[in-house]
Amino acid sequence: MDYKLDYISKLLQKTSSKRIEHYVLSRIWHLLDNTDIKIVPQQYVSRQLNKYALTDIYFPQINVHVEINEPAHYDNLNIIDRDLKREQEIIVNTGHELITINCSEDLIGIHNQIDNLVSLVNRKVNKQKNAGTFKPWSPQEDFNPNYWKEKGKISILEEVTFRTIEDICSLFNADYQKTKRGFLRKGGIVSPLAPELFIWWPSESSRSGWLNLYDEDEKTITETNLDTQKTKTHYDLHVKGDFIRVVFYHYKDVLGFTNYKFLGVFKNDRNASEKERKTIWKREGQCLDLITGDFN
Amino acid sequence: MDYKLDYISKLLQKTSSKRIEHYVLSRIWHLLDNTDIKIVPQQYVSRQLNKYALTDIYFPQINVHVEINEPAHYDNLNIIDRDLKREQEIIVNTGHELITINCSEDLIGIHNQIDNLVSLVNRKVNKQKNAGTFKPWSPQEDFNPNYWKEKGKISILEEVTFRTIEDICSLFNADYQKTKRGFLRKGGIVSPLAPELFIWWPSESSRSGWLNLYDEDEKTITETNLDTQKTKTHYDLHVKGDFIRVVFYHYKDVLGFTNYKFLGVFKNDRNASEKERKTIWKREGQCLDLITGDFN
Repeated sequence: MDYKLDYISKLLQKTSSKRIEHYVLSRIWHLLDNTDIKIVPQQYVSRQLNKYALTDIYFPQINVHVEINEPAHYDNLNIIDRDLKREQEIIVNTGHELITINCSEDLIGIHNQIDNLVSLVNRKVNKQKNAGTFKPWSPQEDFNPNYWKEKGKISILEEVTFRTIEDICSLFNADYQKTKRGFLRKGGIVSPLAPELFIWWPSESSRSGWLNLYDEDEKTITETNLDTQKTKTHYDLHVKGDFIRVVFYHYKDVLGFTNYKFLGVFKNDRNASEKERKTIWKREGQCLDLITGDFN
Repeated sequence: MDYKLDYISKLLQKTSSKRIEHYVLSRIWHLLDNTDIKIVPQQYVSRQLNKYALTDIYFPQINVHVEINEPAHYDNLNIIDRDLKREQEIIVNTGHELITINCSEDLIGIHNQIDNLVSLVNRKVNKQKNAGTFKPWSPQEDFNPNYWKEKGKISILEEVTFRTIEDICSLFNADYQKTKRGFLRKGGIVSPLAPELFIWWPSESSRSGWLNLYDEDEKTITETNLDTQKTKTHYDLHVKGDFIRVVFYHYKDVLGFTNYKFLGVFKNDRNASEKERKTIWKREGQCLDLITGDFN
C-alpha cells in the first residue's frame, strides 16, 4: 500500500475513539489537501521540570501544534485554566505556535476554526516555498539511507529515521551480517568510517535485561541491566574512559510503525555516572558528518 | 451537541474499523463541504428475489450510491465478477446511479476518483437548485411534526422520520397520554382525524412477544406473537374485516439513533393472511393526506 495512505489512514483510525477530535483531524487533512505536508500525532513537548505534554497534532515542517479540545474540556473552569497554563508552557518551551480548536462550538463554528487553521498552515508553507526552504514530506527519501549518504550528514533537526538496522548499517557502510550473533542481535556496531564511533540502536523496551531510559528534557540515556552485577560491570568499564555513541533510538510510534530515530551523538558522562552508579550518556552533538565523522 | 455534527461524526466513527473506506468517506464529506447534503450509510437496496444489498453510502437527495471497495476486493477475479454483477443489479433495480471507488489505487489515484465523485454530486445538486427542487438536509425540519402538519401530507418519498411516539401523536393531534398503559406502551392509537385509520408503530425488535417482520421487497409486515394462541386470536380477528394502519416503523439506525419511519398506509391482506395463518399487512398507499385522511 502507498505509504502516505497507510500512514494517514492509520493516523485517522487511531483517533477514532474520540469522534469529535477525529472529525476535526480528518477535516484538517482533507482540506489542506496537500500530501507534501506532514502531520504527526501526539508530539512530545517538554513543559518544565519532570513534566511533559503530548500535543494532539503537530506540523513538523512549520512548527505548529494543534490541540483539539473535545466539548468536555469546557465543562468546568478548572480544566479550562489547566489547559491554558499547559498551552502557555508549551509555547514558551518550544517557541512553536499552538492553535486550539474549541469543539464545544457548533458545526459551523468548528468549520470556521478549521478554515482559519488551514489558511495559517498554507501561509506558512507558502512562505517557506517562496524562501526556497520548504522540504516536502517525502517518506521515501526520509527513510532511505542513500538519500542521507548523498547529503553527507545527518542532523536531529531533520528528523532522520530509519525502518531497519540494515538501513542504519548501510548509512555507515557497516557490515549488516556482523550485527547478528546466533538468535540475538547486537545492540550496535563500530563505524568503519571512524572507529571511535560506536553506532548504537538502544530500544525503548528492554532487550536481554538491558534498559535504556531516554530523558528527552535532559538529553541523556541511562543504561542499566535488570541484573545489578551487569549494570556494575558495564559502569566500571565506561567510567574509566571516553566513549562515543551515535544513537538511533528504537521505538514503535503511535501508529505502530517501527522506527530507529537519530537522537544525536552521545558521550558517556563520567560525573553523572559516578553519582548514579549507572552508565549515563549525554548528547554532545546534534549533527554528524558522514564523511569525516566530525560532530557538533 | 449540534445534530449534524453528532450525526456525521458518528457516521465517520462507525466506519473506522475499515480504515481505507473510512479515509474515503471522510474525504468525500469534507471536500463536498456542504452541510445541506445528506449522506446515509449502508442504504438498503433490493436486488432480486430474496436478495438485497447494502451500499456503503447513499446520497438520498440525488439518488447516488457509492461503493467503497477496499484493496482486498481486487485480490481475485471471482470477487471482482461478483461485485460487478451486484452493482449492475443495484443500478437496474433502483434506477439510481452507483459510483465505485477503487481503493487499490495509490493515494493520488484515490484522490482523483473522489474529486470526480465530488464534482458529480455538486453538479447534480446545482441542477436541482437551478430547477428549484433541491431540498437541503434539515434534520430540524425532517423530525419536526409541525413542519409536516404545515405541509398537510406525508409521503414515503420524503423519508419522513420521527424520534419519538409523542411526535407521531402530535402529527395527528392524538392524545399522547393515551398511548401509555401502566408500564407498557400501546403499539398504536386511533387517529382522531379519521377513526378508520389506526396509527401504528411496530418495532423491528420484539415487544411483549409481538414480532413485526417487515419485508422491504414485498412491502408487507407480518405480525405474529411468540405465543401461538395470541397469533391465532389476532389472525381470527383481522381475517374477517378490513383494517387500515398508518405505519411508523421503529428501529435503531446504524448510528444508534432511534427512528420511527413512515412506511406508508397498510391494509390487512386477507388472502395472504389465510395462506400463512398469520396477520399480514400490505402497503396500499405511499402518501397520506393529513387533513382528509385520504391516501394513495
